[in-house]
Amino acid sequence: MVKRVAVLLAGCGVHDGTEINEASATLVHLSRAGAKVQMFAPNTDQMHVVNHCEGKPADGKRNVLQESARIARGDVKDLVKLDVTAFDALIIPGGFGVAKNLCDWAVKGKDYAIQPQVEKLIKAFHKAGKPQGMCCISPVLAAKALPGCEITVGQDKECEKWPFAGTAGVMKEMGCKHVNKNVGEAHVDVKNKLVTTSAFMCNGPVHEVFDGVGVMVSEVLKLA
Amino acid sequence: MVKRVAVLLAGCGVHDGTEINEASATLVHLSRAGAKVQMFAPNTDQMHVVNHCEGKPADGKRNVLQESARIARGDVKDLVKLDVTAFDALIIPGGFGVAKNLCDWAVKGKDYAIQPQVEKLIKAFHKAGKPQGMCCISPVLAAKALPGCEITVGQDKECEKWPFAGTAGVMKEMGCKHVNKNVGEAHVDVKNKLVTTSAFMCNGPVHEVFDGVGVMVSEVLKLA
Repeated sequence: MVKRVAVLLAGCGVHDGTEINEASATLVHLSRAGAKVQMFAPNTDQMHVVNHCEGKPADGKRNVLQESARIARGDVKDLVKLDVTAFDALIIPGGFGVAKNLCDWAVKGKDYAIQPQVEKLIKAFHKAGKPQGMCCISPVLAAKALPGCEITVGQDKECEKWPFAGTAGVMKEMGCKHVNKNVGEAHVDVKNKLVTTSAFMCNGPVHEVFDGVGVMVSEVLKLA
Repeated sequence: MVKRVAVLLAGCGVHDGTEINEASATLVHLSRAGAKVQMFAPNTDQMHVVNHCEGKPADGKRNVLQESARIARGDVKDLVKLDVTAFDALIIPGGFGVAKNLCDWAVKGKDYAIQPQVEKLIKAFHKAGKPQGMCCISPVLAAKALPGCEITVGQDKECEKWPFAGTAGVMKEMGCKHVNKNVGEAHVDVKNKLVTTSAFMCNGPVHEVFDGVGVMVSEVLKLA
């Protein structure tokens, strides 16, 4: 039976939106597995716009839904229209847009809150026993919405290859079990039907990120 | 020996920039093959900005280099800095940005002209005997810069699966040899060291586009 998967986007571009390669990898692996995909994004302004050449905030406003449509080739719906009963699984690729537009982790750190509609969504998929896949920084959403869940954001010791390893420590402080994994692997929290992979939390080559996202997609579909 | 590949971008998003999945597929396949990649883009304003939800022009200006940096995670250089002697091959992913920001095909159709620095670049790689890969609408650049070359833009008979097949007819009028190919295939013009694949000229699933781009990348690297 065809698996119906909702993919939640948060803009377009690593510094203020969804990480493009992670999103595309998700779509390629879902397509190859024969899943039916519908993308969604919140119809809200981005926290800000970042000049990706300089990595610094720029002037202007952009809408998360409209920018997400760049990844989706136009085929993206307003998050308010997401009916959990119409899907078998949810996948949330990473990028700073997750930490800026879906929650405020980028600003508040461990005192962050999730956007209410995103928190409601994650809890609804969980309650319905439907699997969720998250990569890169997206597992922070699960850490808040599903207390005590098991996740990976890669490794917990900072080094050149793992520049954001401090995130794992915060996840542990919040009561999560963090599992160290390499970029090509995913961790499956069977009880919570939650699959996570580090993606660009690792300073690794893009094909390894692609493969890790592939493992995440595959495990999510097995649980669906 | 490590192959050094320049990838030319034209913004970020299918309707006014580089097609995101084609660019990401190019990067994944080059990464897996161990190539050393540097992305470039012209430091110019986009022809216009398109609201990708509606597929219609929107207000505002965006810079091609800055938007390309979204795909490149910041690691993109101004096209004026591209030194042909420092690279073994050039790849140009597709998207309407190619037809709007690298040439004016989107506005002028068969009477189009290529941006001078892009035309110079393609001719320089050709003259140096270095291979070039182009997908989707990018082969129109080769059709103008390398008269009489062999290309594919997919199929030459329009149908639901091939909505842009008319492009092949124009390429033939211009004196090119157009070779019908499916989305997972590429055509190699051995004489001109030019490799082309249809990508999203085909209304096909994204994993088939990914695979076709993979064939293109592989053939380019063989010629390099």
